[in-house]
Amino acid sequence: MKNQILELLEKKDYFTIKKILVDLNEADIAEILEEIDENKLLLTFRLLQKDKAVDVFSHVSISLQEKIITSASDKEIKYFVEELFFDDMIDLLEEMPANIVKRILANVKENERALVNHFLNYPDNTAGSLMTIEFVDLKRNFTVKEALNDIRKTGVEKETIYTCYIIDLNRKLEGTVSLRELVISNEDTKIADIMNEEVIFVNTHDDQEEIASKFKKYDLIAMPVVDTEKRLVGIITVDDIIDVIEEENTEDFYKMAAMTPTEDEYLQSSTFQLAKHRIAWLLVLMISATFTGYIIKSFENTLSSVIALTMFIPLLMDTGGNAGSQSATLVIRGLALGTVKTKDYYKVILKEFQVSLFVGLVLSTINFLRIIAFDHVGIKISLIVSITLFITIVLAKVVGAILPIIASKVKLDPAIMASPLITTIVDALALLIYFTLATTILGI
Amino acid sequence: MKNQILELLEKKDYFTIKKILVDLNEADIAEILEEIDENKLLLTFRLLQKDKAVDVFSHVSISLQEKIITSASDKEIKYFVEELFFDDMIDLLEEMPANIVKRILANVKENERALVNHFLNYPDNTAGSLMTIEFVDLKRNFTVKEALNDIRKTGVEKETIYTCYIIDLNRKLEGTVSLRELVISNEDTKIADIMNEEVIFVNTHDDQEEIASKFKKYDLIAMPVVDTEKRLVGIITVDDIIDVIEEENTEDFYKMAAMTPTEDEYLQSSTFQLAKHRIAWLLVLMISATFTGYIIKSFENTLSSVIALTMFIPLLMDTGGNAGSQSATLVIRGLALGTVKTKDYYKVILKEFQVSLFVGLVLSTINFLRIIAFDHVGIKISLIVSITLFITIVLAKVVGAILPIIASKVKLDPAIMASPLITTIVDALALLIYFTLATTILGI
Repeated sequence: MKNQILELLEKKDYFTIKKILVDLNEADIAEILEEIDENKLLLTFRLLQKDKAVDVFSHVSISLQEKIITSASDKEIKYFVEELFFDDMIDLLEEMPANIVKRILANVKENERALVNHFLNYPDNTAGSLMTIEFVDLKRNFTVKEALNDIRKTGVEKETIYTCYIIDLNRKLEGTVSLRELVISNEDTKIADIMNEEVIFVNTHDDQEEIASKFKKYDLIAMPVVDTEKRLVGIITVDDIIDVIEEENTEDFYKMAAMTPTEDEYLQSSTFQLAKHRIAWLLVLMISATFTGYIIKSFENTLSSVIALTMFIPLLMDTGGNAGSQSATLVIRGLALGTVKTKDYYKVILKEFQVSLFVGLVLSTINFLRIIAFDHVGIKISLIVSITLFITIVLAKVVGAILPIIASKVKLDPAIMASPLITTIVDALALLIYFTLATTILGI
Repeated sequence: MKNQILELLEKKDYFTIKKILVDLNEADIAEILEEIDENKLLLTFRLLQKDKAVDVFSHVSISLQEKIITSASDKEIKYFVEELFFDDMIDLLEEMPANIVKRILANVKENERALVNHFLNYPDNTAGSLMTIEFVDLKRNFTVKEALNDIRKTGVEKETIYTCYIIDLNRKLEGTVSLRELVISNEDTKIADIMNEEVIFVNTHDDQEEIASKFKKYDLIAMPVVDTEKRLVGIITVDDIIDVIEEENTEDFYKMAAMTPTEDEYLQSSTFQLAKHRIAWLLVLMISATFTGYIIKSFENTLSSVIALTMFIPLLMDTGGNAGSQSATLVIRGLALGTVKTKDYYKVILKEFQVSLFVGLVLSTINFLRIIAFDHVGIKISLIVSITLFITIVLAKVVGAILPIIASKVKLDPAIMASPLITTIVDALALLIYFTLATTILGI
């Protein structure tokens, strides 16, 4: 499809392009635009029907949005600002450079500008920053017929009308009614009689991770957001929550790989930006690794008398680290999904202990046989290595399980207790055990 | 709330419990049930109104479902089977032990049994295994009024009625119309005139990861599933897709921590089950680590003449591994979210190379100064360690970026190329460079 459009652009056959674009989904058009050159992309964008252009715009990447806005006339910006969903406009304003924000704000209607500024002030990652103002509100004394008429009049512009919100005269949230209920109910039924008063809602300052959990728990497609006086100020829709879920997962992946999390797009980030998020943890872990080095140093005598001990250092360090990060990952993920709770700590530790005994026994037996068969270092060293391996695996798994739970208990993100940190701790423990055993058994 | 119910159970005040349960959300009740003893939980469950009991049932864990079903009478099972959403019933049948499945199937209506068996045959993780049969289908020649009447008659039982599906006489999918459109359209409008013919659909055998991407891309709340002849056979709803997204993320977390993925619940799994998923990779990685050991062994002479070299092994191994896993994680995550594509490989490698130069320079300078200041091993060894560190970081980052892309290119899951595997490779490279440099510079 992309190639077809490029060919048609070459031939300047704009008429055919226009016809193709009419039938394409906006998300697909956005994908095509991402892949073509700047001048061609702007040309193609201008071939879209006006309202489709707005839909496509809200699907393209930030860098592309910037290009489009930069090349747009004030009239075009005004149209965009009016037609974009409110939350998409706020997202746009949050991401654009100052000069573009200024141009956009100049085109926001006077009466909306205060609202825009208010929304821009909600802290990142809170309900306030996720919500939109396009929703249907009804009064409890409406009949179903009145409600449906109201929806017909105003609903076209609303991001979701599948749940309607019942508010009192002070805009306090009283209940919800689904469009489904309205459609299947008798015309003369009062809203008060069919509305659901057990509303699941969040506050403007609630954290997005918490909100995502609520969506998952209650299987929602939209959720109302209220202010401190329980006045309805917006709604959050499930498509934005899916983005939040992926964002939170990405954050955990980054933390677990010793990076400070960022929402910047990888390919759009500069070398310096990327390096910045990686150096801090690498430094901390590098310094920690020097302590493991000091353990080795303090056993230099042992090592120089039996240099063969050195060759098993990687095996002990790596296996310990891997065993520990398995446990840590299971617990971190369990805590994130709510399938493991901090109060389950004794169950988790017991389980990891049992697993570690089993895994440790299997691995150290195999390792013992392998050393005997191939390494010709004598039975004593084979034993020292295998016993150390066994103890290391047990320690690694227990430490790997405990640290994330402790982190969660003291309100830290368990994800920072992931493999790199545990590897460092386990490395030191493993070598300490190794050399102590060696000095004792070999009598050095 | 849980404690209140426990107290009331103690007092046998079932009347008050009943009253409390009526007002509680089914997801909240499910959460409470998970935390109370078996006999009390069954008692509490029986205090629920019949239809609420079904809703609660579909929210509790598999092990709890099993307890409830085991204690239920045939009449109760019959009611459950009739009232559960079709996809929830299939999920149940897939998870229960054989004897319970038999009891459930005995209570499925004759005409539904073939359908149930058909659904049970869809492979795990495909559209077929995710879909439900509760949806609204309409014909193109209906008017809006007829359509709404149809929905009123049948829609109450449908899992989602917000998108209705237009099918022809052979049940082939022709288009969709949203309830929103139906509500805001004129009563006499023909469905054919307002229906959307650009339907995003999937086939019964499509993989769930692909389906989740489509939901994300097109911001859907439901998607139709068709068979090989494009006949509509079911729909998938967004709440199930959120579960799929979390499942796929969990799978990646597990793979990246060297575990074979599983959907078993952690706290419900036996020691042996848990160990089984961990041993394979640990073994592979342990064997790989012995090769790193052989590199050390082959430089035994170098080591025994300058034993001080040993103490920097952990630092080089750990920092290399961490630097590599940072890059691997970024690329794996980018590939999973679609923000990095395999064809971007040269951009990614270039970026990682630039970042690695910067990060390598900073870390090895700091490391050099630290060794000079604290370790008293002479300028030559300080230099050897720091140069090795620099080269290791560059190699680690480039290897960490390339391997997941290659995996993706040859249709393997990039996640298996995560930190543990890269650590092992980088370890070997780092030590090889380290000892080669040392032998050369120190002239051993």
